[in-house]
Amino acid sequence: MKILELIEKKKLGQEHTKEEINFIIDTLMNNSSADYQISAWLMAVYFQGLTENETVYLTDALIQSGDIVNFEELTPKIVDIHSTGGVGDKVSITLIPLLVSAGIPIIKLLGPGLGYTGGTIDKLKSIPGFSTGLAISDMIRQLKKIGVAVSSNIHNIAPANRTLQAIKYTTSIMDSIPLIAASVIAKKVATGAGNIIIDIKYGSGASLKTTEDAEKLARLIVNVGKKLNKSITTVITSMDEPLGRSIGNAIEVIEAIEFLKGKNQESDLADLTYEFAAIALINLKRYDSVEQAKEYLKYLVSSGAALEKFRELIQKQKGNSKVIDSYDIFELPRYKISCSANKSGFINRIDGYKIAYACKLLNAIRTKKNEEIDKSTGIYLNKKTGEQVFEGDTLFTIYANKHEEIELVKEYCYNAFSISDNQEAHKNIIYKVVRDDQNV
Amino acid sequence: MKILELIEKKKLGQEHTKEEINFIIDTLMNNSSADYQISAWLMAVYFQGLTENETVYLTDALIQSGDIVNFEELTPKIVDIHSTGGVGDKVSITLIPLLVSAGIPIIKLLGPGLGYTGGTIDKLKSIPGFSTGLAISDMIRQLKKIGVAVSSNIHNIAPANRTLQAIKYTTSIMDSIPLIAASVIAKKVATGAGNIIIDIKYGSGASLKTTEDAEKLARLIVNVGKKLNKSITTVITSMDEPLGRSIGNAIEVIEAIEFLKGKNQESDLADLTYEFAAIALINLKRYDSVEQAKEYLKYLVSSGAALEKFRELIQKQKGNSKVIDSYDIFELPRYKISCSANKSGFINRIDGYKIAYACKLLNAIRTKKNEEIDKSTGIYLNKKTGEQVFEGDTLFTIYANKHEEIELVKEYCYNAFSISDNQEAHKNIIYKVVRDDQNV
Repeated sequence: MKILELIEKKKLGQEHTKEEINFIIDTLMNNSSADYQISAWLMAVYFQGLTENETVYLTDALIQSGDIVNFEELTPKIVDIHSTGGVGDKVSITLIPLLVSAGIPIIKLLGPGLGYTGGTIDKLKSIPGFSTGLAISDMIRQLKKIGVAVSSNIHNIAPANRTLQAIKYTTSIMDSIPLIAASVIAKKVATGAGNIIIDIKYGSGASLKTTEDAEKLARLIVNVGKKLNKSITTVITSMDEPLGRSIGNAIEVIEAIEFLKGKNQESDLADLTYEFAAIALINLKRYDSVEQAKEYLKYLVSSGAALEKFRELIQKQKGNSKVIDSYDIFELPRYKISCSANKSGFINRIDGYKIAYACKLLNAIRTKKNEEIDKSTGIYLNKKTGEQVFEGDTLFTIYANKHEEIELVKEYCYNAFSISDNQEAHKNIIYKVVRDDQNV
Repeated sequence: MKILELIEKKKLGQEHTKEEINFIIDTLMNNSSADYQISAWLMAVYFQGLTENETVYLTDALIQSGDIVNFEELTPKIVDIHSTGGVGDKVSITLIPLLVSAGIPIIKLLGPGLGYTGGTIDKLKSIPGFSTGLAISDMIRQLKKIGVAVSSNIHNIAPANRTLQAIKYTTSIMDSIPLIAASVIAKKVATGAGNIIIDIKYGSGASLKTTEDAEKLARLIVNVGKKLNKSITTVITSMDEPLGRSIGNAIEVIEAIEFLKGKNQESDLADLTYEFAAIALINLKRYDSVEQAKEYLKYLVSSGAALEKFRELIQKQKGNSKVIDSYDIFELPRYKISCSANKSGFINRIDGYKIAYACKLLNAIRTKKNEEIDKSTGIYLNKKTGEQVFEGDTLFTIYANKHEEIELVKEYCYNAFSISDNQEAHKNIIYKVVRDDQNV
């Protein structure tokens, strides 16, 4: 078997056997194939696709390429919620303490942010002292004490997936549905989650632009999961503007804390947080209906239980939990620049890519592996899609440290906003839940 | 402009501008793109194609990537004949002395063989003493004296093409029509040929399998040539079996000498040689009809003029020209094994790939860059397609130096032959001549 023949086979649209997929991932891991052969194969996969069986083989090969963490014996099963990525997505930070306060154990291994989306681990690191390099044994010990542990993924989990992701990212092959499915499932299964919920973003700010593609991915993920004996629930959500109002690091944590304090309960961030948490409770058979589950979850927020869980997590991982009460303990930016609308109307779009690009200029989002980022900078959206604005109102706020970058950041942010005379119909952020119905 | 955006653009099937194509080739040459990005782009080109204009831009970018040899001032114009590659193709060796004896100057820069086809330069090197590393100035000096000079391409001609070819060869992207066109034209134009004839092979032994694909390539080459102000004639020829009877190095030169001595004038080798030479004469307006031109060319062979030109070339490039009269001056193999047919019937196919593979086992064809090859080994086809064979007749002869490889070589050669009870209709080796009619 030669990698050349396998590239040719996929180029011609033929189906790989399990042995062939394993061979490709083996050559990737032992460097007997070259990166340019793998990228050619990936591009052929982009055009010819993978069958459901090939996707199962690939997912399994990615899982087997490294260590598999086994939390299976824990009761109730570990819940893991994964997003396919979005600008300003801080749902993990609101969701983790909320679910833990509901008695659900959470262990989360988080990768660094790269590309257009920041990483949750980078955001948590903006809390002074917060420690993110935990060994698996320490995570399990902490889990048994307080029900939660989070760490950066310093472990050898699905290393082949990391390599593939790096190649895909640098060759513009991020929108192949079977490759996304294999990558997402491999990471979650290898980290031992028994109850997996995957947030599939679609829209102008996501890799997949349409609900059709998002549904294809959702169905494939559910089916592949089933063949690997994992129950996976997918939620298709829109990503036509950044999630929440803050994009950055410290400012995103602050927004999450505000939510846990019971504020901004009518927001896209709140909608997603409650939806995912409710699905987790239903999957664990704690509730029969989403409405009942959400009522309980809202009580956990309004009573302060979720916030206290977050405080406990920060303390346990050596962070300064006083940030919850005094935001000025976070590293602060030198400049806060309010920018006003230069016309009146309704916001009908905020381009997530342009806002993300502005955050890259501010060094709030990593553009290269291992790059140091600035935790204090970012963009705050004073207006969101659907809202009315009058000329002179503050449209957005720039948190910056370097004066020279501000003009360009402003330009990108202004260009991100579309203001029109008519208010467009509000689109629900949650489009659809796709799961294997026989498993519910 | 970023390579990532250009990969995405081609992935989506959009047309590149001249600046974009130049940018891609520039990043290839200055290593600011990675090989895995170039291979992803090439695979996207395989699926989405290139327009005629994009092919012109790519050809030009390949030409501009290195030195351009200018023989334009020579009269009559330098003729260059190029083949897209075939097993046993020794047409250059018969054609060069024939055309030079007709008064047409030839300068040929030859690349080393790689893959399934041997290189003409390797074959010529089997002549003891024959020198192949000539400087351009020496070639021009020799050209003025005897009308011909050949050299291995040790020069900086279209280096980007070499890099692209290496990536295409190792990623199974050898059958993209626009990429073949750009590569072939760039090499010829950069080496200063004013009158270009390109042999486009199709069939089971070629990269392109059908006459439809071969015609597409022919038409594209002619059109791109025209836009670059080069008159190119293409000849579509079938490659369903090796060309001629010998496949190797010394034995191919011997077959060429035999042709120049007036033997085997009814053969595929003779057909191609006379066809290409006649086209060259017609392109130079020396004759109006192919028939008249061929009559003159046959006279040059029967009179011994072409053979004497070959002798002069060998002597001038320090080779031992006595090989022409005594073939045992060539390095001889230790073993010559005649293998007989194990059934009677008609040969209806000889698989060129299997014969080439047997030659690789014999080390007569290079499999890796810079590999030393054995000049004395090879396969001689005692029977060719369309011929009748009786059980016990010699079918092929193996020229080998190592005893241990012979059994496997035999197996490959026997498998290459298809013998059936019925004689199939003879297929003319020349399918079609495609040229820009307004230029003739």
